[in-house]
Amino acid sequence: MNTDFVEMNVLFDFYGSLLTGKQMDIFKMYYMEDYSLGEISQELNISRQGVYDSLKRAESVLKYYEEKLGLVKKYNSNIAKINNIKRIIDDAKINISDKSALRVLDEIQKELDEIEL
Amino acid sequence: MNTDFVEMNVLFDFYGSLLTGKQMDIFKMYYMEDYSLGEISQELNISRQGVYDSLKRAESVLKYYEEKLGLVKKYNSNIAKINNIKRIIDDAKINISDKSALRVLDEIQKELDEIEL
Repeated sequence: MNTDFVEMNVLFDFYGSLLTGKQMDIFKMYYMEDYSLGEISQELNISRQGVYDSLKRAESVLKYYEEKLGLVKKYNSNIAKINNIKRIIDDAKINISDKSALRVLDEIQKELDEIEL
Repeated sequence: MNTDFVEMNVLFDFYGSLLTGKQMDIFKMYYMEDYSLGEISQELNISRQGVYDSLKRAESVLKYYEEKLGLVKKYNSNIAKINNIKRIIDDAKINISDKSALRVLDEIQKELDEIEL
């Protein structure tokens, strides 16, 4: 496995629920809990090759779904826009003194915080 | 097929790319172009039962992914929040006269319009 750990963890956040139970377990041990292939093999009583194959398969599955659905790409694009709005609001709060405008900005900020992309 | 057409079209918007080419064709003819099973059967030279099975399978696939990923549910929740912010801004624009505040609201509105959920 020479794949980017951060990328794999992000893909797992979005598509992990589409893996089989076994793929999920192995994926978590390898990518989140820092087990080696050998250690996973011992722990789960599966051959090292079996662990390797499951992990490779899980990676392909996650990448396949990102290719098809592009959720990570969409998320990154939208989170940037939302953060941009938050920045606009933060800046505005420093410069604006109109009370009712400030109240509106607070309201918008609160709603923005509730969006779960 | 006695399923909700609107629901099916929404699910297709989110997960249609995960269907096979054949499932996609049949799904579109039935749910978007109003063909009957018999007409699809004639048009594609597949048995009526074959058309039925493909359609049922496609429906299951779409529902399966919504169960696993819940994108439609998430979308509905977020679109409601974004529309709420747009309403807050529209109302505020009527009541606020502070020029720099109005400019900020315009800026926020523009960013919001660019979010593609």
